[in-house]
Amino acid sequence: MTEKVVIIGSGPAGHTAAIYAARANLNPLMFEGIQAGGQLTTTTVIENFPGFQEGINGMELMTKMKEQSLHAGVRILSEEIHSVQLSSRPFKVKSQTQELESETLIIATGATAKKLNIPGEEQFWQRGISACAVCDGALPAFRNKVLVVIGGGDSAAEEALHLSRFGSKIYLIHRRDQLRASQIMQKRLLKNPKIEIIWNTVVTEAKGQKILESVNLKNVQNGEIKNLACSGLFYAIGHTPNTNFLKNQILLDKEGFIITQSNSTKTSIKGVFACGDVQDRYWKQAITAAGTGCMAALETERFLTGVD
Amino acid sequence: MTEKVVIIGSGPAGHTAAIYAARANLNPLMFEGIQAGGQLTTTTVIENFPGFQEGINGMELMTKMKEQSLHAGVRILSEEIHSVQLSSRPFKVKSQTQELESETLIIATGATAKKLNIPGEEQFWQRGISACAVCDGALPAFRNKVLVVIGGGDSAAEEALHLSRFGSKIYLIHRRDQLRASQIMQKRLLKNPKIEIIWNTVVTEAKGQKILESVNLKNVQNGEIKNLACSGLFYAIGHTPNTNFLKNQILLDKEGFIITQSNSTKTSIKGVFACGDVQDRYWKQAITAAGTGCMAALETERFLTGVD
Repeated sequence: MTEKVVIIGSGPAGHTAAIYAARANLNPLMFEGIQAGGQLTTTTVIENFPGFQEGINGMELMTKMKEQSLHAGVRILSEEIHSVQLSSRPFKVKSQTQELESETLIIATGATAKKLNIPGEEQFWQRGISACAVCDGALPAFRNKVLVVIGGGDSAAEEALHLSRFGSKIYLIHRRDQLRASQIMQKRLLKNPKIEIIWNTVVTEAKGQKILESVNLKNVQNGEIKNLACSGLFYAIGHTPNTNFLKNQILLDKEGFIITQSNSTKTSIKGVFACGDVQDRYWKQAITAAGTGCMAALETERFLTGVD
Repeated sequence: MTEKVVIIGSGPAGHTAAIYAARANLNPLMFEGIQAGGQLTTTTVIENFPGFQEGINGMELMTKMKEQSLHAGVRILSEEIHSVQLSSRPFKVKSQTQELESETLIIATGATAKKLNIPGEEQFWQRGISACAVCDGALPAFRNKVLVVIGGGDSAAEEALHLSRFGSKIYLIHRRDQLRASQIMQKRLLKNPKIEIIWNTVVTEAKGQKILESVNLKNVQNGEIKNLACSGLFYAIGHTPNTNFLKNQILLDKEGFIITQSNSTKTSIKGVFACGDVQDRYWKQAITAAGTGCMAALETERFLTGVD
């Protein structure tokens, strides 16, 4: 049997696509992947997803979305897609136990925040360490506290500026002696009295009791190590899109994100749609991902109806 | 005092923008307008907003979003903005009792489904009459029932095709003797055995006891009136964006929707951002509107930080 639509991934984009596709009677099949629920399941409270007055736990939100998908009739397999064949339709997808064909594909495999793999990182992840300043900066734990941002690009500069609205002092740690951030960003950083840039330095360890209390900094020029007390450590060193299984099959940008058309989830292959963080290097929010999931399902329906 | 950001409108786009802006410490001020909560407050159950397993009542969802905005610190005024002055910054906005200045504006005033103003329309609105087939088509009340769609453009054709997945028979009622829909849409309509087009005809009345049970159809060529039993009446005659107060101030398309840049909520005026249905003639879903609300707040923050 050829499926009408296979959805790969199970974050906010994947589940929104699934709910819309199921309600359009397309009988979608979802492969959840190894991290069912996506990145949100590794966070704590989410205060910026609209509809939940006092915030909601990330795992709880994704459990609700999964139940909603099941309620709408989505079939969900807890497996990962290892390879796809997109050169002709129906497309072929392969997981550990399944090999099947589908008329359309919705790719919602997300992205993974890059990590440093330093001691303490795992222990204090979401206990002081965050990969999203916009999501977490406003949390009480970071108000009027010393915060550390790692990175040297526009995102790092922007996260430092964002955090300066909350923290008492923001250190931007950069391994080189100049930023990759644009001139205008640099100017804003240097003008901000709360922000201090520490050059030629890397974070080598995250330390604390139950929550993060300090980081070790190493000067890469002289090897000197210093301890810096802080309550927050924000990674702004980028995300890796989960597109390894798509190489040479579909148009990706140089960092591996799927390229989609403007105001659309259409990819370089007709009948293959991409939504959420796997195609978004800019917004990266649960609610924007969910919006594109809806778009992917509506475009899939149009494609299957033969009107687009 | 000059406000940092004024948000006009209070649907999913407006509240998502408000929540993000408040969490970025921008202290936003929202003008709710005359229909607090927007279009969703006139619907019944919403099954496609992710996060609510068994659906949620439209009014309830918007109450939750408003409480979330208040919880985040948004100041909300139950007034409508009558006029704005966008020719120089700070912008000026005027409501019945307020006249104030703001460095930025987020416009989220939405759109209004066009109505026919026929007898029975108000009585059966959301009791058989719907302006969104994608939202409501899958509801049990319409399964295996006779459904009627009004309109002649691509949206009407698409809604008829969508509804053919649920209803037993779909009548597309059009006032002329040919469709404005594209050739490919027309072909699909004509090929679909469930769909029948009734030409040169208008709906003159919606009838029933507690819910819609039939419509009166009038042939515009011979004036003949017939009654047609049906369980659903879907309006696909377009939406009117709520932009009257913006005329000659900002770039609108020929139907009055605000023109925004690609993958952005930036308008023709620097510092003015638009999100939700007021700038979207294509997706028109609560979750896509919410996504653009988030984008508007993030772009407003960048603008105020001086980095964009």
